[in-house]
Amino acid sequence: MGGFFTGRTLTDLGRALRSGDESAAGLLAGALESVDPELNAFVTVDRAGAEAAARRADAELAAGADRGPLHGIPVAVKDIIDVAGLPTGMGSAHFAGHVADADADCVRLLRDAGAVIVGKTGTHEFAYGGSGDVTVDGPVRNPHDRERMSGGSSSGSAVAVAAGTVPLALGTDTGGSVRIPAAFCGIAGFKPAYNSIPTGGVFPLSTSFDHVGLLAGSAGDCRVAYEALVAPIDPVSDGGRVAWIEPQAIDPEVESAVRALFPDAPPETLDFAELRRVFRFIQDSEAYDVHAERVAEAPELYQRPTLERLERAAETPGWRYVRAFREREEFARRVDGLLDRYDLLAMPTLPITAPKIGETEGPLGPHVPTLVSLTCPWNVLGLPALSVPAGTVGGLPVGAQLVTRRGAESLLFDAAARLTVVTG
Amino acid sequence: MGGFFTGRTLTDLGRALRSGDESAAGLLAGALESVDPELNAFVTVDRAGAEAAARRADAELAAGADRGPLHGIPVAVKDIIDVAGLPTGMGSAHFAGHVADADADCVRLLRDAGAVIVGKTGTHEFAYGGSGDVTVDGPVRNPHDRERMSGGSSSGSAVAVAAGTVPLALGTDTGGSVRIPAAFCGIAGFKPAYNSIPTGGVFPLSTSFDHVGLLAGSAGDCRVAYEALVAPIDPVSDGGRVAWIEPQAIDPEVESAVRALFPDAPPETLDFAELRRVFRFIQDSEAYDVHAERVAEAPELYQRPTLERLERAAETPGWRYVRAFREREEFARRVDGLLDRYDLLAMPTLPITAPKIGETEGPLGPHVPTLVSLTCPWNVLGLPALSVPAGTVGGLPVGAQLVTRRGAESLLFDAAARLTVVTG
Repeated sequence: MGGFFTGRTLTDLGRALRSGDESAAGLLAGALESVDPELNAFVTVDRAGAEAAARRADAELAAGADRGPLHGIPVAVKDIIDVAGLPTGMGSAHFAGHVADADADCVRLLRDAGAVIVGKTGTHEFAYGGSGDVTVDGPVRNPHDRERMSGGSSSGSAVAVAAGTVPLALGTDTGGSVRIPAAFCGIAGFKPAYNSIPTGGVFPLSTSFDHVGLLAGSAGDCRVAYEALVAPIDPVSDGGRVAWIEPQAIDPEVESAVRALFPDAPPETLDFAELRRVFRFIQDSEAYDVHAERVAEAPELYQRPTLERLERAAETPGWRYVRAFREREEFARRVDGLLDRYDLLAMPTLPITAPKIGETEGPLGPHVPTLVSLTCPWNVLGLPALSVPAGTVGGLPVGAQLVTRRGAESLLFDAAARLTVVTG
Repeated sequence: MGGFFTGRTLTDLGRALRSGDESAAGLLAGALESVDPELNAFVTVDRAGAEAAARRADAELAAGADRGPLHGIPVAVKDIIDVAGLPTGMGSAHFAGHVADADADCVRLLRDAGAVIVGKTGTHEFAYGGSGDVTVDGPVRNPHDRERMSGGSSSGSAVAVAAGTVPLALGTDTGGSVRIPAAFCGIAGFKPAYNSIPTGGVFPLSTSFDHVGLLAGSAGDCRVAYEALVAPIDPVSDGGRVAWIEPQAIDPEVESAVRALFPDAPPETLDFAELRRVFRFIQDSEAYDVHAERVAEAPELYQRPTLERLERAAETPGWRYVRAFREREEFARRVDGLLDRYDLLAMPTLPITAPKIGETEGPLGPHVPTLVSLTCPWNVLGLPALSVPAGTVGGLPVGAQLVTRRGAESLLFDAAARLTVVTG
């Protein structure tokens, strides 16, 4: 399943572009040739626009105008993020034929950094789900086993990277939607701190929790891209204190695989089930606010599971929403206490490996809550969180998730670099 | 119905205290003697505590330690505001026998200013209503007609001032609960800008909208007290531009009486019904969060109308709460636009005069929404709002409400001083 970019880091590619061994046009050609339609990662490939951007990137570099590490790099963008002149379909029949007028803020950052936008990638309908198989565009397939889910909602972005079609992709993450498909597909996914990457021009799911994030082959590439788009990450002196946050409901083989990377980390607990409730009350209230008129006027245009989720979301009482924000404060104090004692919190990204496409329930119960159970707490708190490959179970990738406090992002990447050595 | 303090301003009283014509002990004795049990304004009179405070106030003044305009002044405090060592009953059987451990922040401000706390005043149960007749302590009666509502929820504070028992009282105002009883009882009520007077130690109703406010015989006394408790109000140059905000549902006689005070003010419109919906979705969600456990465990301890309101409040959908905050932003822009063109917005405080105690519906419909219809918008926006006496209709007081932008409070009081001349 190796593609054109498999095993090539942004640093390698940048060096090759600047030495003349590669051109932006050549990298783009490699990307376009390695699109695998069966995986269904892309919903739109903008060959003409990307070729023009690659030519500009090459001309600029030739003229000595260097935009930095993303200059000339092919990038894919999740299809709930507006790219001017391209369809933005949200994975939904509601937006069939809809073309964006303007670039989202994060897309403008990509262009300013010289990136070449190859196309738009498949998303779980309206990003409202972690499986990636509920979308008008058809399921995005996992390159490790094409009968299995890619995970979502940034499904196509993860698969485009995992298949080696692009070295970098933009996704969004409201409850884990960058980290989940990254873990299921064996790549790295970084959800920065809340509001670190602006969300203007991204279709909202739950504005209290919506984040733009990055998917790449390695944590190091996530870091390079983040620094190119946002700002250099300040170094933080690393005490190496890692806590293992014990999952309460998990496939034991997945737990063992990830735990093996942190053998010395003392165990700590958080009430993940309670946290998922806090997450759900807030997400569902905010999501239904976004969708109320569509549900009333054209319910038939939704995929059935999405409509059913929205109808349940409409029933969330307002006082539960208010209470959830109060509970978030308590949770924040508990986690602040942990982050006073530890540099990093480590846990699996997901409690299971990728289920079969279309499956809705597994040994741990319904997939909808299971998929976000270990990732959504870090959206609730807006903390930076990174998922990195942590080996395989039964031939399918599993991810390790690292969390730290805002401003200490360098600890995530330092730790990930050490883990890479361990997992080889 | 004139009481001991009727017609005496804080400035007059302060002069008499400092000249030796009055003492704090003497003022307190006057207050205690003029308590009229039939009006039911007080739920607790703290004779011993007040007498000790009055003695201290007199001793301090005699020693040259002058705490300012409230030094030695008898003040009443609404019974949802904690006063250390006194019962705080919330107007509810749920808090029968409950004694506060510590002073609320606003009570500490009163004590620091030298005020003498006479006792606690009756409140609509949990401050969740504008009529003042739903409380375990029995209805607070309007001194202008004892068969009529005082208005609420700061019922006893308004009546204690209107009856001349105290010159000043603390109330709270979440949807109009200072201004409504002030208007029904023919006195002045000031709801400052959101968070101007701290709410710590006040039982919450809806934290987004809860305000502590002041009730006094005149707008001038509200100003004196506010400046003594919070800070001097900066003078703002007054262009005298007043807009008349047209009520959409109102007793025409009430409208005429108030409109006569602003004959030259150009009419402007706001959608009060829509604003009341925004208010209700937010208030009800936040109120049920506060009460959920009590409703589940001891519903029988509520007054029936309160329990019925809470049960309806529990049904407010979360997405309506979220949407209401978005709608608040639109409303804020509309009002910002008005306040760019005008110094003040003027309107009646209430669309009716005080109904009979126990009446739940009138010609304009159910009283619950009617009572807050013109006041709650200014809680939604957190703007300073002042209700001042505006004559009578059928022998019952009506109030004029003035609203301005945060920081321009002096405009409210300047305009009120001019109105006093007009209404003679």
